[in-house]
Formats: sequence, C-alpha cells, structure tokens
Amino acid sequence: MGKKTSQGKDGNKMATRRQVLQAGLGIAGALATAPAQAADATAAPQGRPLGPGVDARPYGVPSPYEKKVVRRSLAWLTPTVESGVSFTPLQDLDGIVTPSGLCFERHHSGVPAINPDKHRLLIHGLCRRPLEFTLADLVRFPSASRILFVECPANGSTEWRVAQINGLQFTHGMIHCCEWTGVMLSTLLAEVGPLPAASWLLAEGDDAGRMARSLPMAKALDDVMVAYSQNGERIRPENGYPLRLIVPGWQGSVNVKWLHRIKLGDQPWNLREETSKYTDLMPDGKARQFTWKLEANSVITFPCPEKPLRAKGPYEIRGLAWSGSGKVRRVDVSVDGGDTWRTASLQEPVLAQCLTRFRLPWLWDGGPAFLQSRVIDEGGYVQPTIAALRAVRGVNSIYHNNAIQTWAVAPGGGVRNVQIL
Amino acid sequence: MGKKTSQGKDGNKMATRRQVLQAGLGIAGALATAPAQAADATAAPQGRPLGPGVDARPYGVPSPYEKKVVRRSLAWLTPTVESGVSFTPLQDLDGIVTPSGLCFERHHSGVPAINPDKHRLLIHGLCRRPLEFTLADLVRFPSASRILFVECPANGSTEWRVAQINGLQFTHGMIHCCEWTGVMLSTLLAEVGPLPAASWLLAEGDDAGRMARSLPMAKALDDVMVAYSQNGERIRPENGYPLRLIVPGWQGSVNVKWLHRIKLGDQPWNLREETSKYTDLMPDGKARQFTWKLEANSVITFPCPEKPLRAKGPYEIRGLAWSGSGKVRRVDVSVDGGDTWRTASLQEPVLAQCLTRFRLPWLWDGGPAFLQSRVIDEGGYVQPTIAALRAVRGVNSIYHNNAIQTWAVAPGGGVRNVQIL
Repeated sequence: MGKKTSQGKDGNKMATRRQVLQAGLGIAGALATAPAQAADATAAPQGRPLGPGVDARPYGVPSPYEKKVVRRSLAWLTPTVESGVSFTPLQDLDGIVTPSGLCFERHHSGVPAINPDKHRLLIHGLCRRPLEFTLADLVRFPSASRILFVECPANGSTEWRVAQINGLQFTHGMIHCCEWTGVMLSTLLAEVGPLPAASWLLAEGDDAGRMARSLPMAKALDDVMVAYSQNGERIRPENGYPLRLIVPGWQGSVNVKWLHRIKLGDQPWNLREETSKYTDLMPDGKARQFTWKLEANSVITFPCPEKPLRAKGPYEIRGLAWSGSGKVRRVDVSVDGGDTWRTASLQEPVLAQCLTRFRLPWLWDGGPAFLQSRVIDEGGYVQPTIAALRAVRGVNSIYHNNAIQTWAVAPGGGVRNVQIL
Repeated sequence: MGKKTSQGKDGNKMATRRQVLQAGLGIAGALATAPAQAADATAAPQGRPLGPGVDARPYGVPSPYEKKVVRRSLAWLTPTVESGVSFTPLQDLDGIVTPSGLCFERHHSGVPAINPDKHRLLIHGLCRRPLEFTLADLVRFPSASRILFVECPANGSTEWRVAQINGLQFTHGMIHCCEWTGVMLSTLLAEVGPLPAASWLLAEGDDAGRMARSLPMAKALDDVMVAYSQNGERIRPENGYPLRLIVPGWQGSVNVKWLHRIKLGDQPWNLREETSKYTDLMPDGKARQFTWKLEANSVITFPCPEKPLRAKGPYEIRGLAWSGSGKVRRVDVSVDGGDTWRTASLQEPVLAQCLTRFRLPWLWDGGPAFLQSRVIDEGGYVQPTIAALRAVRGVNSIYHNNAIQTWAVAPGGGVRNVQIL
C-alpha cells in the first residue's frame, strides 16, 4: 500500500478528550433500570462458589483466560531456537513495565543453567588488582535501581526494505522495560583499579558461546550497572540470571547476559559480533561500527494489526516512545499519514532511557486512516521517516531501524502494516 | 529484648560511601593473577552446554534456584486459606516494583474464576443513567497508569502489643507496589451522571462473599481508578482479575478486587467490614471508623531476620518507605535504637503513594546494633515510635500500625525483631 486517498486523510478528525467523553455514551449499554443482579450489599451473596485460597499459588501466574498473551518467535528468522529471538507482546501490554515473563529473548547459544552460588564475576586485565566476586559480594556493595528499556538493535529489522510483518509483536517486540537493581560498574572498577591505559573493556557471558562485547571505558564509568535484580526479584534465566550488564540506552546486545568476566584493555576486541555482525552496511559498501546508542523511536500499540478497531466512534490512540539519549520530550500523532500532527499526552513519570507511554483521544469516522507516531527526545532528535532513513543508510542495513511506523486502518476497522514512500 | 546496652549503641559508626568503597577491599577475593578460565574471548568457548532456546518458555518463570522466594501464609492467623493472607517476601526484593507473582494476597472467600468476556461492571443508584460496562468498553475509554503501593491496613497487626513475629515477610509483607493501568473512575461517573445527592458509593466484588466497601464521592472523583492491568499485563486472578478498584494511598481493603458493581448513594453502607471489622478500637472503648488513609511508614529490608549479616565490615542498609498522603520527603536511619539518626539516600523517581527505596552505607563493627528507619512525608508527618502510637491508640487495635520497626543485630550477625519501649 503506497499512498492513501485524500478522502482517507481528510475524513478523520482528532477528537478532544471532552469530545470523547461526550461521545462515550455509545460505549456502554444504557440501562433503563438496574438489572436483577444489582441486589443491595445487604442481600445474601449469590453466584460464585468459594475459590482457591492464599496457599494455592505461592508464586502466582496469569489467568487461564490470558494464555494467548505470550512471547512468540518466527521460526524462519534464525537457524535454531537456541540462536533465536522471541518477541514481547506489546499489543497486549499497558503502561511501561514489561512483566519479566513476557520480556523478549535473544540468544546466540541458548539459556545456560547457572547455579548462583558457584557463579563468579572476574574483573581483570589492565588493572592493579584483579578480583573475583561472588554474587553475595556483589549484592553487598552499594546498589542502585533504574527503570530502563532494553532493545535489540535488530528491532524493526524486517521492515528495512518493505512492510514485511503484519503484527506489532514482530515489528517492534524486541524491547522490554524493567526495573533493574545492581551495583554500578564504576564501583567495581574502583575496586580493581584500572591502569591509565585501560580505555576499553570486554564483557563476556557464561553461555555456551561465551558471547562477549567491547565497551568504551567512558560509558562503563558513566551509568553501566552489573544488575542482579529485574522487576524486584532476581533476573530471569533467559534475561541473564544471575548477572547481567545493563548499559542504559545502548543496544541490547551489549547488555551482556550471564555476565561472568570483564577484562580491561587498551583497544576494542573487534569480535565477530562487532565486525561481521551488528554493524550497519552503508550504501558505499563501508560499514558503521560500534553504533551502540539507540536513537529515539516510537510506535502506536493501539490500534495495531493484532488489535483492530470495532466500530466508528471514540478511541484512545496509545503507544510507546523511548530514546537512548535520555528522556522523551514530545510525541506527535498523525491519523492522515503524516500530513497533520497533534501532540499526545505523556504519562508521568517520564524517565531517561525508559519507555514512555503516550495517549491521544481520537474520534474515528469509520473511514480509512493512516496512523503514525513521531517522537522528539530531550536532545531535539526527531524520529525520521523510513524514506529519510533509507536516503542516508540505504537498504543494506539490518540494525537501527527507528523509522516512523504506519498502521493503515481499513474502513472495516482492520489494521495493516504499511509504508508511505 | 527491652533495652540495648550503651556499648551496643556507641560501638557502631555510620560509614560514608567513600569509606565503604575503601573498605570494600575485603568483600571480593583478590587474585594475584587471572585464573585459568580467564581465557581471551578469541579462545574457543568452553564449559557450558547449549541451553534451551526461545520457544522453551513462552511465559517465563524464575530460576529453579529461586524457589524459596515465594509468598507465605501463617496458618494460625485465619480459620481457612480462603479467608487468609499470604505475605510478600520483601526480604528478597530489590527496587520498588513487586513482581505480580509475589504480591501479597488477602481474601475473604477465595479467588473467583472469572471469564472476562462475561464480566460486567454495573454503575447504578443515585445517577441519571445507570450503565453496564463490558471489559472491552472499559479498555476503550481514556486510560491512565500509575505505580502505586497497595497495603492491607492489618500490615504489622501482629506487632501491636509485642514484637511477635521474627521475620520481615510477616511483619511488613502485606504490601506490594505495581504499575496499575485503567480508566479513572471519574470518567465512568461522568457517563452515568451522579445526582446531586450522591455523596457515597459502594464498590462490590464478584467473589463468593461479594465483599464490598463504602467510599466517599470526593475520593472517587479525585484519583480512584478502575484498573484492568497490573505491571503491564492484565491483573492476576488473586489481585482482582479482571477489574480492581485502585484507591491510591488508602487501605488495601477498599481497593475492591473482582469489581463488578458500583452503587451511588447518599450515605455509607456501614457493612460488617466497616463496623465490626476494619475499625480501630480506642482506649476509651469507642472505635475509629473509615480510617482509610495509610499514614507514612517505613521498614529496613536489609539486614532483617531473614537476611542476617555475615562478618563485620561495610554494608548497605536498605529499606522501603511510603505514605498514603503523597511523596516521601526524607528517611532517617538509626543504628543505635533511635539515639542518633542519619539521612538515607532516596532512589529516584520518588512518586506519590508509591514505595520509595532508601539506602545508607554502614560500617558494622561486629557489635550489637539496633536498626531503625523513620520516614517523613511531604506533608511533614513523622513516623511514630510504637510507644507514641500506643499512648494514643492503646493496645486494642489491629489495624494501622505504622510504628518505627527495630531490628536488633547480635554480635554474630543474627537479626531479631524487638521493640524499644
């Protein structure tokens, strides 16, 4: 779907919140009188049998009616599930916190089973005093907590050339947002005493493939955490149990899971995953390397292909915005494919390197519409169109597609992934 | 344990963060040379076998090594588990977010199994237009999200007379903190059009006992939510699936779970749970009624009875503070039973009616210590001692014990629940 009709563009009008409330009459069923079950509280209880008690689930799980709200993978995307990716069901989530059980996964050699009592973090290399930390050691240090997004740089990778995947879970689901607690890496580095020449470090995981990444010392000393806790409890196995490097605003791949070793050096390691992979092949045949920071991005989570509209009338357009550079300053929403924009409300608190929930009331007239969101972060960076991104980066890229997403609403209420060129 | 020795009080000194870092040398094992496993990343991977892949757990669960981190109940506290309470394991949690699977439960007649497609919310009584809402209706309205604590007013109830329970999970574990998303109740009330006489409302759950509570209209119109989402996903069954009334800063019992009916009236209903129960019996034999707001409270979560100290040296004292009146302004910590105090650092963001994590470095000299935390909220309310609370309220109360908690540290590092009178 290349271009929308002018009727589609003009036929939809933004609604003020006031209008939505007034129009909201149509949403619920009006009752002439209260129905039979509306007995006074003083009447005898009726209806439901006694349910299970407090010992039934020492660790709770979702309702059986929510069994379709799960991570999903695309079998064709990777050779094996151990080197695969599963996606967060953003279409089913509200707010900004991702429940740990639904956080996307990206592994290169599966999820290791690690006994935390035997796990160690070694910090060595160009330092005065190499040290090995137990988990108990690390938990004892001064701690910090932050609510942060972690996003795979391949989020949106299938959409570089065409609008390929008809589902929000797969176009944008390689992101999650959790409260992480741990010790600042700067605290641990102060313990080992980096030598003056130490300008880079290697962070390595304890999975079968010993996945590792190079990081500049300046970032390590700034805001990087060695996290042991995710959303209050210890990190989930697939997200790095028992230790994960958390690198705020930088691509998920450097947020090394199952962290067991940090080595200080004077240059990057230029590993396979930093040269052949995770680089951006530009139109001139050269590749951008070490493009860690995730630029501002946003997406509308309702409506979306998995959550179509029902009938014309008032709706709330909802979405998520984020920026690796800091806070979200503003999100604009268009229902006419980018011809006109209106500013959405942002849910407080708006936090740096964290998902921000945005909302805008919309009165859908039942006609075609082209929904887009565009974030501007506190540094003034404006989320680009896919056309603008391609003009600079070409179509060889896999990573760092943060283009404006378009959802096309059909007259029946169905929603499709399209690109406006 | 009534009174500590002066040796115990004077023998412990607060440590500055700098001192902790310097002293931190003793925490980790120093290595003369890097051990054998510290091969360069370019060496062949070794060690772990390939683990499970991304399809193994469409909905993730904690590591098997964390199986002891669960809700727990006290069998003697209530006649049956259906009318029981399970407690949040605060001693195992970091940050402020409580994972939904570990949120405390308090039921009066068990957990109903509710089909969300058949569930309805009726709003009727003194209004112009009674309405019945489906879940799809409610999700369609303008929404809001807030990270809020929910606390049972009986939190700490066992401690009114003596230091009875030797465990943080049971003294303070009737609290959790989640991100709630839903529709503001004021939005729904605007739809039904309350009559001028409507000054109260009844909120009723769809459990077997049809538990219900009266609420003043002013609060309902202020900040009350009809929530359908908890920590991103739909509310867990034991926390009210599919709808829960969220009443910020007010006692958990009025945060009606399995919400299915709201009736508008011109006076409170004075139900059994608002007269015989959930009132505060004062020394003069009269009872305080409708004491909904939870005053400021705090507790040290490390160390605590379940998490003793290991050896003398640097530690971080950690805890949680909260106030039903708004934000936490300051938390002071004492290690000498309240003789001297030092101000803890507060983890940002500090949010209204939300848990706030506080931290303070401490150099433990290995001697006895008496740890306390004292919160001051933005309204200037100062958390009282248990003696001060008893002087006003007597010892007949069950609810609203927000007294300063004392943990006694023994020379061996063990921690016990004590009261200083």
